Amino acid sequence: MHKFNIIVKDNRSKARAGIFETSHGEVETPNFMPVGTQGTVKAVNQNLLESDIKAQIVLSNTYHLYLRPGTEILEKAGGLHNFMNWQKPILTDSGGYQIFSLSDLRSLKGDGVEFKSHLDGSKHFFSPKKVIQIQRSIGSDIMMVLDECTPYPCDYDYADKSALLTSNWAVLNKEAFEKSKPLYGKDQYLFGIIQGSIYKDLRERSAKELTLLDFDGYAIGGLAVGEPVNIMYEMVDFTTDFMPERKPRYLMGVGRPENILECIERGIDIFDCVMPTRNGRNSNLFTSSGVLSMRNTKYKDDFRTIDEGCKCYTCRNFSRAYLRHLFVAGEILALELASIHNLHFYLDLVRNSREKIIEGTFMEWKSEIINKLTVSEKNNLED
Amino acid sequence: MHKFNIIVKDNRSKARAGIFETSHGEVETPNFMPVGTQGTVKAVNQNLLESDIKAQIVLSNTYHLYLRPGTEILEKAGGLHNFMNWQKPILTDSGGYQIFSLSDLRSLKGDGVEFKSHLDGSKHFFSPKKVIQIQRSIGSDIMMVLDECTPYPCDYDYADKSALLTSNWAVLNKEAFEKSKPLYGKDQYLFGIIQGSIYKDLRERSAKELTLLDFDGYAIGGLAVGEPVNIMYEMVDFTTDFMPERKPRYLMGVGRPENILECIERGIDIFDCVMPTRNGRNSNLFTSSGVLSMRNTKYKDDFRTIDEGCKCYTCRNFSRAYLRHLFVAGEILALELASIHNLHFYLDLVRNSREKIIEGTFMEWKSEIINKLTVSEKNNLED
Repeated sequence: MHKFNIIVKDNRSKARAGIFETSHGEVETPNFMPVGTQGTVKAVNQNLLESDIKAQIVLSNTYHLYLRPGTEILEKAGGLHNFMNWQKPILTDSGGYQIFSLSDLRSLKGDGVEFKSHLDGSKHFFSPKKVIQIQRSIGSDIMMVLDECTPYPCDYDYADKSALLTSNWAVLNKEAFEKSKPLYGKDQYLFGIIQGSIYKDLRERSAKELTLLDFDGYAIGGLAVGEPVNIMYEMVDFTTDFMPERKPRYLMGVGRPENILECIERGIDIFDCVMPTRNGRNSNLFTSSGVLSMRNTKYKDDFRTIDEGCKCYTCRNFSRAYLRHLFVAGEILALELASIHNLHFYLDLVRNSREKIIEGTFMEWKSEIINKLTVSEKNNLED
Repeated sequence: MHKFNIIVKDNRSKARAGIFETSHGEVETPNFMPVGTQGTVKAVNQNLLESDIKAQIVLSNTYHLYLRPGTEILEKAGGLHNFMNWQKPILTDSGGYQIFSLSDLRSLKGDGVEFKSHLDGSKHFFSPKKVIQIQRSIGSDIMMVLDECTPYPCDYDYADKSALLTSNWAVLNKEAFEKSKPLYGKDQYLFGIIQGSIYKDLRERSAKELTLLDFDGYAIGGLAVGEPVNIMYEMVDFTTDFMPERKPRYLMGVGRPENILECIERGIDIFDCVMPTRNGRNSNLFTSSGVLSMRNTKYKDDFRTIDEGCKCYTCRNFSRAYLRHLFVAGEILALELASIHNLHFYLDLVRNSREKIIEGTFMEWKSEIINKLTVSEKNNLED
């Protein structure tokens, strides 16, 4: 039996439509994971996340949850699902990215990395074994290995050494995974993370090394860190060829709506990104005709919905003029309504992609959508 | 036909249970109005406000709405109900309180008051006629007269002169009300505001003068501005005796749960206060056994609901430990969940009061509830 079943493979691209089964339910792919770093998707309650946005899986973060509320409390709660009352699948990032980006001081020591908390400067040590233990306490359906996410630009030698480190850690992660058990009686999966910066030979080597370890799925890490978008597409396209066909493929931290469509075409199944929520809180609303900057004066008496045809709570109930008023007046409701709409937009995008892959019309549809996004984006900016 | 029907009068107190009919539906009294100053109840969306909190009426503010978004936009939207998509009753405070508390500079000129916007310092002029016009643009079901809210303490001479000003303005308000019409085809009512600080003779005179003008309802203003709580109760008890029996009585800006019960006993029908939302955002949660300060370390692994028996969205879904985590982690969801619970608690309080008045057991029930609130409050503080 496969945990991941591919239902349809697109004839004219590497896109696939599938279903990934977890102990907390199915994830239809392609899919997008709203980011709930600290056990909450910022400004959106769990009811709307499930019933309106219809998220099938959310992402949370090992580093953040380890520091706050801590594993002791998560264990007492019976895991993160119970703690945050989200009974659908959860994926946890391992915290590698945070250690290398947020921590003031960090040093590789033995089989792990010592780092200082960004909250209080206290010292902590993460090893592959430790992040598995923490993710057992969290009880996430999909755990991620500890990796080093290289920045951009990154010279070849560093990328080479770093990818080797990630591969070595991957072995230890897998070992710790196999030697440990879920704490709450629900299966947990472990995904490997392919690194190698923008160097094809390193990406190929990393993918091959990780594939040998037979993870439940594979992520591409170290992209969307500042490199030109065409390089990202090229690396994704190149790397997916070395990723197992029958395992889910997760592109970490990507991205804009058009990035997601381009990478679905290149064989990616799962995405996460802070953009819908973060940009929403900054009053930027995604629509089928580009981004609307809701503080703009031109919306002050625009009583249309944010995006015609959108069925989200915000669009069903409120106008651009009201949303602008809320942003200008500094009201908290603005953050909620914008986040709901943007997440709904992203989830619609992956749901429609899946439908079009199954129908066999993904490529035409994709071009149309991207064209609409890009042309209108230009118009919005010229306004 | 009466807009306000008293269903039951309590035998052992001045409490009454009634129904006030507006163009946007019925308000069962006693009732509490969540405060939505800028056309949104802070941190709570309209769906939860209606379906979970079951608010029957919200309060908004003429001064704030006039400055932002402005009457032009409200009129284009077809009034505040449409603008904020709240199709139940709305009461608007006239802005008198804000002019006298928020504005840097204000001066009485002719039949009104000139003031500077707290937002940008721009100069504006409010008169009784002007606030009626603005409230016609807003389309609130219940409009309030322009008044001067005296501070505490306030010497007799100032309170005397100020109450006379409010009475004079009341005449002009009533005149402007009768000479103007609703803009959206829905009846609007006008309530007078009784002032007089803590001086019984002034309260009596103010009540009598306003009663002559035959308003649709009467408010007591100028209390809950810092005076000892027993003086407030005394003034309410004294003043309601001079307020028409068959008109709704609204006590402005009150208060804590026990204040509300004490003033229901003294004949008040409608309340508003920022406490449930403001205190909620500050992590103070109202419960039947007193206030819980949710940032307290003792809640870190307290997996009970906020208030046993509470049926609100927050209590149905989340623990104290999770709410504490959200507050400590600075998450927006904390503000929403706390505001929902606190408003639900206040609405439960007035719903239960009404039920007990109808049952004829209000006074016993009230003592019990207040005792529980007070005794437990002490325990919570001693913890």
